[in-house]
Order: sequence, then C-alpha cells, then structure tokens
Amino acid sequence: MALRGASLKKVKVGIFKCGNIGSAPLLELLIDELADREDISVRSVTTGAKMLVEEVEEALPKIFDFNPDFIVFTSPNPAVQGPTKAREILLEKKIPSIFISDAPGKRLKEEFEKNGFGYIIVMGDPLIGARKEFLDPSEMALFNSNIIKVLAITGVYRIIHQEIDRIINCYKEGLTAELPKLIIDTDSIRDNSDFKNPYAKAKAMAAYELTKKVAEINTRACFMEKEKEKYIPLVACAHEIVQIAAKLAEEAREIEKYTDTLVRRPHSKDGRLKIKEKLMLPLTFDEEIYHKWFKSSKADSQA
Amino acid sequence: MALRGASLKKVKVGIFKCGNIGSAPLLELLIDELADREDISVRSVTTGAKMLVEEVEEALPKIFDFNPDFIVFTSPNPAVQGPTKAREILLEKKIPSIFISDAPGKRLKEEFEKNGFGYIIVMGDPLIGARKEFLDPSEMALFNSNIIKVLAITGVYRIIHQEIDRIINCYKEGLTAELPKLIIDTDSIRDNSDFKNPYAKAKAMAAYELTKKVAEINTRACFMEKEKEKYIPLVACAHEIVQIAAKLAEEAREIEKYTDTLVRRPHSKDGRLKIKEKLMLPLTFDEEIYHKWFKSSKADSQA
Amino acid sequence: MALRGASLKKVKVGIFKCGNIGSAPLLELLIDELADREDISVRSVTTGAKMLVEEVEEALPKIFDFNPDFIVFTSPNPAVQGPTKAREILLEKKIPSIFISDAPGKRLKEEFEKNGFGYIIVMGDPLIGARKEFLDPSEMALFNSNIIKVLAITGVYRIIHQEIDRIINCYKEGLTAELPKLIIDTDSIRDNSDFKNPYAKAKAMAAYELTKKVAEINTRACFMEKEKEKYIPLVACAHEIVQIAAKLAEEAREIEKYTDTLVRRPHSKDGRLKIKEKLMLPLTFDEEIYHKWFKSSKADSQA
Amino acid sequence: MALRGASLKKVKVGIFKCGNIGSAPLLELLIDELADREDISVRSVTTGAKMLVEEVEEALPKIFDFNPDFIVFTSPNPAVQGPTKAREILLEKKIPSIFISDAPGKRLKEEFEKNGFGYIIVMGDPLIGARKEFLDPSEMALFNSNIIKVLAITGVYRIIHQEIDRIINCYKEGLTAELPKLIIDTDSIRDNSDFKNPYAKAKAMAAYELTKKVAEINTRACFMEKEKEKYIPLVACAHEIVQIAAKLAEEAREIEKYTDTLVRRPHSKDGRLKIKEKLMLPLTFDEEIYHKWFKSSKADSQA
Amino acid sequence: MALRGASLKKVKVGIFKCGNIGSAPLLELLIDELADREDISVRSVTTGAKMLVEEVEEALPKIFDFNPDFIVFTSPNPAVQGPTKAREILLEKKIPSIFISDAPGKRLKEEFEKNGFGYIIVMGDPLIGARKEFLDPSEMALFNSNIIKVLAITGVYRIIHQEIDRIINCYKEGLTAELPKLIIDTDSIRDNSDFKNPYAKAKAMAAYELTKKVAEINTRACFMEKEKEKYIPLVACAHEIVQIAAKLAEEAREIEKYTDTLVRRPHSKDGRLKIKEKLMLPLTFDEEIYHKWFKSSKADSQA
Amino acid sequence: MALRGASLKKVKVGIFKCGNIGSAPLLELLIDELADREDISVRSVTTGAKMLVEEVEEALPKIFDFNPDFIVFTSPNPAVQGPTKAREILLEKKIPSIFISDAPGKRLKEEFEKNGFGYIIVMGDPLIGARKEFLDPSEMALFNSNIIKVLAITGVYRIIHQEIDRIINCYKEGLTAELPKLIIDTDSIRDNSDFKNPYAKAKAMAAYELTKKVAEINTRACFMEKEKEKYIPLVACAHEIVQIAAKLAEEAREIEKYTDTLVRRPHSKDGRLKIKEKLMLPLTFDEEIYHKWFKSSKADSQA
Repeated sequence: MALRGASLKKVKVGIFKCGNIGSAPLLELLIDELADREDISVRSVTTGAKMLVEEVEEALPKIFDFNPDFIVFTSPNPAVQGPTKAREILLEKKIPSIFISDAPGKRLKEEFEKNGFGYIIVMGDPLIGARKEFLDPSEMALFNSNIIKVLAITGVYRIIHQEIDRIINCYKEGLTAELPKLIIDTDSIRDNSDFKNPYAKAKAMAAYELTKKVAEINTRACFMEKEKEKYIPLVACAHEIVQIAAKLAEEAREIEKYTDTLVRRPHSKDGRLKIKEKLMLPLTFDEEIYHKWFKSSKADSQA
Repeated sequence: MALRGASLKKVKVGIFKCGNIGSAPLLELLIDELADREDISVRSVTTGAKMLVEEVEEALPKIFDFNPDFIVFTSPNPAVQGPTKAREILLEKKIPSIFISDAPGKRLKEEFEKNGFGYIIVMGDPLIGARKEFLDPSEMALFNSNIIKVLAITGVYRIIHQEIDRIINCYKEGLTAELPKLIIDTDSIRDNSDFKNPYAKAKAMAAYELTKKVAEINTRACFMEKEKEKYIPLVACAHEIVQIAAKLAEEAREIEKYTDTLVRRPHSKDGRLKIKEKLMLPLTFDEEIYHKWFKSSKADSQA
Repeated sequence: MALRGASLKKVKVGIFKCGNIGSAPLLELLIDELADREDISVRSVTTGAKMLVEEVEEALPKIFDFNPDFIVFTSPNPAVQGPTKAREILLEKKIPSIFISDAPGKRLKEEFEKNGFGYIIVMGDPLIGARKEFLDPSEMALFNSNIIKVLAITGVYRIIHQEIDRIINCYKEGLTAELPKLIIDTDSIRDNSDFKNPYAKAKAMAAYELTKKVAEINTRACFMEKEKEKYIPLVACAHEIVQIAAKLAEEAREIEKYTDTLVRRPHSKDGRLKIKEKLMLPLTFDEEIYHKWFKSSKADSQA
Repeated sequence: MALRGASLKKVKVGIFKCGNIGSAPLLELLIDELADREDISVRSVTTGAKMLVEEVEEALPKIFDFNPDFIVFTSPNPAVQGPTKAREILLEKKIPSIFISDAPGKRLKEEFEKNGFGYIIVMGDPLIGARKEFLDPSEMALFNSNIIKVLAITGVYRIIHQEIDRIINCYKEGLTAELPKLIIDTDSIRDNSDFKNPYAKAKAMAAYELTKKVAEINTRACFMEKEKEKYIPLVACAHEIVQIAAKLAEEAREIEKYTDTLVRRPHSKDGRLKIKEKLMLPLTFDEEIYHKWFKSSKADSQA
Repeated sequence: MALRGASLKKVKVGIFKCGNIGSAPLLELLIDELADREDISVRSVTTGAKMLVEEVEEALPKIFDFNPDFIVFTSPNPAVQGPTKAREILLEKKIPSIFISDAPGKRLKEEFEKNGFGYIIVMGDPLIGARKEFLDPSEMALFNSNIIKVLAITGVYRIIHQEIDRIINCYKEGLTAELPKLIIDTDSIRDNSDFKNPYAKAKAMAAYELTKKVAEINTRACFMEKEKEKYIPLVACAHEIVQIAAKLAEEAREIEKYTDTLVRRPHSKDGRLKIKEKLMLPLTFDEEIYHKWFKSSKADSQA
Repeated sequence: MALRGASLKKVKVGIFKCGNIGSAPLLELLIDELADREDISVRSVTTGAKMLVEEVEEALPKIFDFNPDFIVFTSPNPAVQGPTKAREILLEKKIPSIFISDAPGKRLKEEFEKNGFGYIIVMGDPLIGARKEFLDPSEMALFNSNIIKVLAITGVYRIIHQEIDRIINCYKEGLTAELPKLIIDTDSIRDNSDFKNPYAKAKAMAAYELTKKVAEINTRACFMEKEKEKYIPLVACAHEIVQIAAKLAEEAREIEKYTDTLVRRPHSKDGRLKIKEKLMLPLTFDEEIYHKWFKSSKADSQA
C-alpha cells in the first residue's frame, strides 16, 4: 500500500512529562532523531522532577495552546495525585492521550482502558535509588544514562517510538488510530527484537530483567527500610546492577556489530521508517511495518 | 554566613530547550535530583529536536506565563536562526537568561557578554553523528547515554547545576546574582573536580578530551564529507570514541569507589548543598561553597 | 574461653547429597580446605543427579555405617519425594541433621523446626536452566562454576561452613549444639560479610540478587513455558545473568585485593579458625568467633 | 547401527572420590546433567578432602554394596598411599575400574595398564595453592570454580563423560568395553574440540596451558619453597593465573556464541547423545559417535 | 606479471634512526619478520634517544660504508637541527632517501619534494608525555608498547613496509622506484585497511584518531604549560588515552578473529608478499599488489 | 656518598643488536627516556632481523669506531653462529661487553663467566611464533608490543637499565664496574619489584610466568611440530597467552595507580636516578641505589 494521499498538514504531538522515568528524557528526539522530519511538529512541557497536583494543573494547559493532535503523558507511578489530576483534565479535554509509565502503572490498566487512554507500561523502567545519603545529581544522571542504554539497546525505545509513529501515520492517512495498550516486559524483547544473534537477544533480555530487579530493590530501599545502615547498601547494590545491566546491553549490541547485522531504523524526512542491516549498504523503506499498521487500523476505521 | 532571612517564596526557574545537547535532557533533574526541594519551582518547554525560528517564536512565550525569575536556554550552536531569534525575544523581555551551549557557542562569547546574557559553553558536548545511514533513534539514544555518563562523571553537570544553584541562592538571599560566564574545557575538570585520585582525574580528563575529538570528527562527517563511503566510517568511528569515553569515565568513578572516596553532593530539602565522601558516613552541609558564592555576589550587590 | 578440655576423638560428619545445588559440590572441602584437619572425619554419599525415593532409601543408610555425629543433607527443593523420604528415615534414626537447600526449601521452615532438623536455606542458589535444547554437560558445569564463584565470594559458603564448624566445636567441647535455623538472603551478606569496602559489598549483594533473579527466570522457563521458542531464550537469558553475577562477584573480591584488605579465614590443623587481612602478614586465631559460639551454646547446655 | 537390542537393566556406575581434583566435584552430574536419564544409576562415595589409607579402606567397600558395573576412582596424585591401597582392593575385587587423576598420575601409566585399569590423566588439572596463609575455604572454592570453567569450556569434561558414556553404552549393547587409556593434554583439545572458530580454539588451548603452568608453580610453592615471603607470592601468582585462564576460556566460548556456532551435546532420556549447533534449532542424535565407539568395541568383543 | 628476471643481488636497505618515533623501534623487523628473507640485507644505526647535530654528523656516515641502495631515515619533527643536518648530508651523497616522521614533518612536505626525498608522515605517531615528574623508563616503554599496538593493528605499519617493499621490488626488477609521498592520516586507514568488518574498521580509525589527540595534548603539556600542577595531569591524561587507544585497536583485531577474517600478509623467503584470510587455510601469493606497483613504476621508468 | 668528583667526559655506550628479543627494541631509550641526559652518548648498530655470521663480522666493527666504554650485545639464543662470532671478536677487542639474551642463553652462563663477559638472561623474553602461515609484520609487531608491556611493567626493563646505569656510574666515578651476572626469573620480580600491593605483584609475576610459557609453546611449535594442522594452533595459542599476559601486567600497574602508589624512577639530566611515588608530589634523588652500587663496586676496585 503506497502512502499517497497523505495529509500535507504536520501532525502535532504534545508531550507532557510529570516527574521522570527512563523513557522520558529523550522522548521527543526518538521520533525525530535527525531533526529533519517534515511531517510532525512537537511540543513538550515539564514541571521538572516534581509531580505535584498544582504544578500539573498550571502547566498541563500550556500544551493545549499548541492544539496537539494527541498527547503523550509520561510519569512514574501514574496512580499518585499529579498524574491522576492530569487524567481528569485530559478526559475532560477529550484529546487522545497515551500514558507512558513504569511498572506501578500496570495496576491502572483497567482504568486506562475504561477511559479510552492509550498506555505503554515499561516494566523495566525502574525507580531510582532515591536516598539522600546516596543520590546526588551525578549519581542520578549516571543512573539515567544506564537506563537509557538498556532501553535503547533492548529495543524498548523502538517499540515506544513506533507506537507513536503508527499514530502519526494514521493521522496522516486520515485513519482512526487505535491507541496503544502495551505492557513492555521481557517477552516483548524476546518476541519483537531486531537481534539476529540469539545470544545477543538473551543478553538483552538479561539486561532488561536486571532493570526489573533494580526496581524491586529500590522500592524496598526507598519505602521499606528505615535505617540507613540497611538502605544505603541496598540502593548502592541496585545502582551496581543497573551499571552492569548497561554493560550487558552494550555487549548484546556489540555482538550484532561483530557480524555486521545490527539493524538500523531511521526516520526519513517525510517520516516514513527506513531500515538496513549491513553498515555500508543503503537504506530501504520498511514497507512491512506499514502493512502491519494499516491492516489493523483500516479495519478499525471501517468498523 | 548563615542562610537565615532567606526569602520564603520559591525561586522560579524557566528552562527552554531548543534542539538537543548532552547537557539538556536531564537539566531539570540535576537541580532537584530527589524531587523534594522546597525552594524552587521549575518549568521547561521544548520544541523537540527542531530549532526553527517559527517554533521558537511560538513556544518560547509559554515559559513567560510562568513568570520565571530567570531562564536557562539550551541549544547546540546558538548562532543559528532559532536561538538567535530567542535571544532577540529574551533581550526584549529583560528576563535574566543563561545560554548553555556546545563548542560553536564559544564564538558568541562577546555577543553574550555585550547583551548581558550568562553563558556556559560545554566544549566537550559534541555534535551527534547525524547521518541518516547511521543514526536511528536507538543510536541517537545510545550516543546521549554515553555523553550523559561523561558529563556526569567528569563533574561538568556539577559545574552547571552549581551555577544555577548559585543564582537560586542569590535570589533567596535577595542578592544580585552575577550570571555565569563559563567555558567548560578540560582545564575546568583538572582544576575543579572532586576526584581524590590523580589517575582517576587523568582518566576523567581523557574522557572529556575524547568527547571533544568526537565533535571534531562528526563536524567533518556531517558537513564536509559528501560521499557515504567516506562519512559513514567517520560517524561510526566517532560513536566508537564516545562509547569508549563513557567507559573511561566510568573507570575513573570506579577508582574513587575502590578507595571509598567518591564525593557526593546532594541537595537538601531546603535547597542547600550537602556533601560527603565515605559511603556509610553521614552528610554534612557544604559551608564552603556558600562562602565562595556570597563573597563575590555580595560585592556585586553593593556595587 | 580457652579450648582446653576438648575431646580427642574426631568429630564425624556425614554428608548426603540428593540431586545438586550450588552449595553441594564442594561442601566437604569447605570444612577441610587444606586436607590437614585432625579434628574431623568426613564421609559423603550421593545418588548423583537423581533424587528418587528408592535411591535415597538404598543409599542413605550407607552413611549410618559411618556412625556420624551429625548429618548434613543437601538437596534442591526438599519438599519433593526423595528428600521427604530422607527426613522420615532421619527422624526415625534420631541423628542430628541439617538440611541445606535452595529457596523452595523456605516453605518447609516450620516442618524442619517442628521435627528438630537444622536448616540452611540459600535463597540465591538457583535452579539451573534445565531444558534439553540448552543444557548439556558443559553448560551445566559452567553454570555451577559461576554459582560457586558467587557463593564463595559473597561469603555464603563461609556462613555455611562456620555453622558446621560451630557444631563440630560444640561436640569437641561436649556442648549441646543448637542446629542452624538460617535463611541466607541478601541481608545476610549485607550484615555479615567480610568486605571492608562498602562498594565491594554492594557489588557482592548485587551478584547475590542476580542469582535470585536467575532462580525466578529458570523456574518460569522450566515449569511454565511450553514452547521452545519461548523457553530457550529464557534459559539462555538466565545463564547470561549467572555469568555476569560471577563477574560482579569477582570484581567485588578484586576491590578488596586492590587495597590489600581481603580477609582470609583458614582452618588450622586442630580445626580452629584463623584470620588475617593483609596478604603478607601472619594469621592469628579468631578468638571472637568462639566467644560468640560458646556464649549461646553454653546457655543451651545448661538449660 | 541402531541401538535396538539394548539391555533394559540400568547400568550401575560407582564413583569413589579420594581427595579432590577439578574433574571430581561435578563428575556424577556430567553423565546425567538433566537428572532424567533412565539407563543409568549412580552412586558416589567420598572421604572428603582426606586421602588416608584407613579412610579409603573403610569407605571404598560401601560402593561395592551397590554392585556397580564399573567404578570410577578420582584422586590427585594416585601414587600416594590412599589411592594405592584402593588399587589393591579394586584389583582384588576385579571390578572394572577407571582412574581419573592429575598430571602426577602420568607416572603410573604402565602400572595402570599392567593391572588392567583404565585411566584418564588430566594434565591441566592443577594442584591448588595449599598454603595456610593463603588458602581458606573461599579461596579454595574460587580456585575450583575457575578450574571447572576451564575444564568445561575446553572440552575436557566432554572427553571424560564420553569415555564413561562409551563404557555405559557397551554394557547396554552387551559389548566388552575397552577401558580408557587417555592422557588429556593440550593436543587433545586441539584435535578433538568442538570449536568452530580457530581463534576460539587457540584461546581454549591457551587456557589449558595456563592451568598446567599453575600446577608447576603451585608444586614449587607447596613443596619446595620454605619461607613464607617466597611461597605466598607464588601461590597468589598461581591463583591469578587460574583466574585469567577461566576468563580466557570464557572468551573462547563467547566467540562461538557470537557466531551462533556453540555446539551442545546433551544426553537424551535413554542416554543417547544428542547434538546441535544453532541455539534455536532442534537437537539431532549424534549417530557418528556411536559408529566410532562400536566399531572399535565390536572388534574387541569378537577378538 | 611474473617476477622473473629479478636481480640476484640482495637489495641493501640502510636505516638511520634519529631520536624515537613509534614507527622506528621495529622498522627493520617489519620488512623481514621471519628473519628468512633472502633478497635483502639491512643495516641500521642510531644515536639513541638524542637528535643532536654532532651525533648525526658522526654516526650517519657509518651507514654509507654499507653501500645501501637506499636509506630510510626516521625521526620525530624533522625540522629540528639533527635531521636537517642529515638532509644536507644525504642530499650531497645523492643516495635515495625516505624520511619517516610524525605530524610536525608535514610542514616539510614541500622541502622533501623539492629535494627529491621520499616521505611518510605518520599523523598518528604522537609525542610522548616528556615531563620528568611523569616519564620514567617504564612509562616510556609502556607508551611505545601502546603506540606500536595501534600502528600495527590499524595497518599503518603495513602501509610503511609495503612502501619499502615496493622500492625493494623495483630495485630487484631493475625499475626506477618512485619514492613514497605519503601522509598517513585516518583516511588512509579508512580507504586502505584490511578490515572486513566495518565496525572493526571504525574502531581502528577511532584508535588512530586517539593517538592524534595524544599528540595534541602532549604538545600542550610539554611546550605550553609551565606549572607542574597543570602539565602533570595533562601528560597523565594523554597516556590514559594512548592506553585506551591500544585497547580499542586490539578490540578491532579481535572482531576479525571472531569471524576468522583476519588478513595476514607475510613475506616469503624470496621477499614476495603472500596473503591469507582464514587461519587454517594456506597462503597464496598476493599477485594484485605487484600489478599495482609495477604498473605505475614501469610507466615511470619509461618516461 | 656524594657524587662529586665524577668525570666530566660522557660515558660512551655501544649497543649491537643481533636479531631481535623483547629487551632490544627500546634499549637505547631505556637509559635516556627523556633524551636529555648529559652524561652519556649512545650508538647502536643492528643487522635487522638477521643473525648471520657474515653480517655480524661486517657490522660489529662499526661500533668500535665510536670508541665505546663498554658494549651491550643483544640477541636471542647466543649459542648460534652469529653471536658466537661476535664473542670471538669482542674477546679479541677486549672491550667490556654485556650479553643480553633470552632463556637459551642460560646454557652459556659458564662460558660468559669464563671469558669475563657480563650477562643478563631474561627468562621471560620468549621466542616469537615464527611460522609463516601465522606471523606477518603486524602479528610480529603486536607480539613485541605485548612483550614490551610485560617487561616494562614487571620491572624487568628497570633491572636491565639499572645494571647499565650502575656501570655508567662506575665509569663516572672512576670505579671498576663489575659486569652483571644476572638471570632474571620470576624470583627477581618477587624480590626486587616496586609494587606496593602484594596482589599487583602477584599479577605481575603471573604475567612473567606466562611469557615463559609462551617460550615453551613456541619452541615446540617452531622446532618440533612438522604439520601445519599442529603448529598453527600452537603459535596462535602462544600469542593469545602473550596478549593476556600484557593485560595482566597492565592490571597490575592499574592497581598501583588506583592507590596512587605507582613508583616512578626517571633519570635526571646528569644521569642520576630520581624516584617518587605519589603522582603530584616532587621527585627526590634515589640515594639508596648509589649506596648499594658503590658499596660493592668500591670493594671491587680496591681488591
């Protein structure tokens, strides 16, 4: 199916970041990595590290002035007050919205579906070791660096940006996009990854499992242990795991480089996805993905 | 000098990100890494990867609605049209503004100073290998992951957030803050770092020098070489260097961990900086830094 | 308290291994690492990899011929038929017995206590990736090699052999030994390890957490997934984790070597524990541990 | 040649471990790695770390009660008194017996052959650094962990278990098995290994050569040097070599994983050997090995 | 083109080393790595680390006694007095001479060409960190070890010895050899390397770029910084970079080993170049290179 | 003892390299690493890779023209014809001469002593894997790079240059220098190294033991195995060992850097040895070494 007839208007993507998760800091860049995409316009607003209700109430409306076609809302644990207030506002505004969140978001699955929100729950996007004796700005940045590496290499970022790309493409085609209903767990990596080498894939899965372990340890260290002799070693332990998870992920990617089978999937200027495997060979359009996307979407729009 | 008498009002920090540099993705989090700081409120707006004049014109004013006490503007090469337009608008608005930028920003030093803008030029925050045959969302994220690691470990992020902290503290003290005029080069790391081990410092300096080398190679690969047989190996080479720079930086940090001398500098709830060295020992307030800040600032405010 | 008056008779330790766990293959050697200990005699019998009732019934009595002072019984999941049969036999025989087991053994805690058995549950001694498409003799040996490394470095083996040493010493002193009631989890490493460097300890704790993760993944791969496209990547992923756990543990030990603070605790010829830290300095007797052991044991024997 | 006609009775393998060598701790598991093999029954008895005559005399007979079809006897240096006593007993009992031993065993080659014993001399199964100032239970376990890794990856364990498998299969076929007469040196790895990549093989051979070097150094440190200033650095040096030998072996295995050519050779339920190369492809029966085994054995049985 | 008609006389290669560069210490060995080449005779004279005019004047003539067919002169910065004096002497003697030099030599390009000297400028052969507080014999040797590794693996040494081989072969064929006019920069590696894997090539290029960075830093540390607090960290930083450059180069070579595509190009006994790729396959003569060499040389000789 | 009264004339060191050993390529530089030493003058002549009698006869006399105070002659196996011829010539010329050689030189110990030659036998300076199917110029250079690293870090180079320095200083003092009679084995490293950390020393010793193992394997591969299926894997195996020996040595040095205890021993301008430990602290003169040297030498000169 050719992409002729696509709308000439840019699709407008609004992003609101409420607190931080590993999927958030580079989100805008994931859908326009070369800053040359002509089919979209992006605006993003954040209240920084804070997730307070009053900040959400004040800042979220800024994104509406941009008239976005749809909104992506990122936050850790979306059950807390700030994101909950955001859902109330967004529900009222009736703008199609997708919530990207970490593991605690899984508990809101039904609420999301009932209210028509899309959701992408990243099970391996862990809580940071948020203990003052341990976490300073450098440690925080390092933690995020490691998480970004794992999420990029395992293909989690690819799954996320392709969901957004799918919606953008539906808008461009005049189709009704079905919002994503995704829980990204290790199975998603096993079943959807671009790894050609099965051991590289196993290492990537291992890296992702480790980030889930980090979430488990940090949750205990931040919310359950009260004495610093107990929680400091735990957060230090969790950050050691995330460091080695990043190494394991990097090793997985190196394996693909070692046999020149690393798959690359850049966006073209007009927004379409390209693909290639051998580094020195040319890119081709990834026809396959469009067939997959529109087959389901068409059906929806005709229903 | 004690901090009594400090204003009770939160200091409002406005951030505008125009395109991406390595210092940008985590900027809000660097000044509130535990999301518990009660002395500041932060808003950040971005147009995503794009740096177009019309996007800046439309999006920048959103940050004014927030009535920020000062604005931090991040972008690569601030000489291009988008950031130039931003400077016109900010100059007119008369809000104190700081430009954080990469090496090409050095050429605007005089313009910044003439117009009263603060600036932080991060010489080791390199251009990405922006060639479509090579750069896809995963590669982009990986590159940023590696840059973040280098900037965090070398102490560049610390220099940046302490400049912002200094201004915040001046506001809180009712002092006139002098905006930063900083070019962060390898010397800054040599002369200001927290490394206790001289070889760890040498490795950190080496990592930073490598990111400068990356900038040099990517500039050539992106703007000078025309044939893909020539530029693809160059961008691939640059990204190999950034990967190994991150490893070298990590090794520097590990050395400090190996002798339990890794310095941590978290923000306290009221925004004051704390410090410690041995992991299991308690934090203390970093009195020294306040003396340094206010000594110079007081002089200014009396002038 | 001096050790005079100790019995001259050798304490006889009987070991029965039913199937394999990571704590089993070197168990005899852990209590006599230099093969020169004059205070004990050890016999060990195993039915190999199998855990069948009939094999246990036939082989276990062989250990009784040796007239052991006490028996150590190792097996995975002690709730299955073979080990259950063993408990019946041992209960009848009234020989003091200690069960060393992996995490599933935790569910038998109450049964052990009710019947007067000692137990040591090693939470980080994981199930192997027992899928025929993946596990061959080499992979099995490698897995055990990695587990042994983690259990040795984290100090788990030390906890185990010191429990046995404690009992041996009670016998030698004519004291009634209280059998161990231990669940060795990450907390045990945090609170009992010999690491002098807190980051080394954090890495060791991380390694142990990873082996617990391996147990979780292998349990799913071995008992829940039915299709080989699903379970092969999972067992491969688990074995990648155990490999990196061994590396992390090794790194923890290297840190202690780097500052020459690695603690060594050999047995002396007469069985007493010695200790030292700096490699080139002499050993001393570890008086402390005897005080700790006998303080509690004496109380028991007087009760 | 099909395996029809095989006997339905389980072949009984008796194992006696006298002292420890690297080939011993996992020996039972190597021939039944998944604990599901229906064609064999295994019993193993050990006297722990000790090799005393009286312990051998008392414990060895326990294995006779099991009526083993053949016995595998493992020990370091079989020329010392304990193993020598064992040979006297076994010779008298006329049970087919195989001695697995380390390099000093090579000197008994002729005696073994004269008395009809099988033997497998593992030249790269080195003496441990048995100096009390250095060797404690943790160091001992680590050393074994590293040796196990080398012996598993280089294929030495495979050579050993296939010799035992060959004998088991001869019993099952009603053939007279020729007992092994094997000296496993670096040549055996060069000529028999499963490595597909020649550099991986070279690294594996290198790892094995290093374990031989370890034997040489530890022998000197344990038996020749008298002053601790001399022997402690030597045993420490030897254990550094075994650690790096394990890393080199691991690297060899990783190479095979990197091109998905790692050969796996699990036992099937009925004991037959299966084989495969690509991780995600199915196993096939290894017909070749049976042809090789029976060709020679048949000839023997007809002779 | 066959090599019949080649002269039977040995070609005499005179080498003079004036001070040290990374291309010098093994130069004689690069053209006769197996010490079995029958077509050449080599003499080499050096004044050690010194580059003084009087030493050059005294020692250089020793090489003339050998009646060399041509001379290779190696030195750092050939613009300084010693090498300049050498050029005067060599110009007078009219012996064909090739100058191998580091980056500063590039400035003499025109002088070389005007005077008919051949030249090979190795841009990535950096100045050592020649500061007394840092550089001792061990550090000097280590630096050279790392540079040698980079120059060997990137193929720089191959480019150099093939230029010498080309000239030797022209002599043997009675052809007039054109002396080399080469500046070996990263492009040379990109365009001429033997790497089969593009990521290996990118890593090799990266290693070479790092050695260029080392030159830049050491030049600053040795000639511009005056205080030891400033220059010691800089030379230490430069030597960290060269260490990691060697690692990166080694990794590039390992990649080729991992897929058994590492190209080897030994000299045969009669001096002709052979080539092969798979380790266990036989060598073949490298016909291609002779065609390339003589095509151009013939043309020259007929001109 | 002060060094006043030292002769003003430069001591002349003549070096002749016959074939290559690991101690040779940087020898001149080891005694003048900063090229600023004013007390010596050095000339070095080599015949390249070859060790033929006729080449030695022709080239050796060139070094006599320089009127050296003493000669250092380096070669592998000094029992072969070329070096033997050199000994004849040197014996006749009566110039004090020191032979630096690899392990086979040990067999000439008595001959050296009888004829009054000094000797330094470097037991860990191994034969290269000189098989044409394997060794090309790049592999040769890499091997030397690795050997240089091991010899530099283990302190072997330091032992060598201090022997030469001792003789130079005796000449300067007008003392009769006793020529060295040294066999540098692992004991020399154990007993003379500068390592402060005992595990670093153990790793350095291990690295040196590995180079001895390389010699053993390459000797077999080069002189005993005839089929290429046999010798190619062996030389590849040996070169893997030398690579990992270099890594192990590097790790030893890193340990000293990690605690800032790396000892540096540069030559001062006047040739005296300086020393320091902490990187940022100043150098001091190494008085100790002079006392050691002259105590023995004086005695000699008075005898």
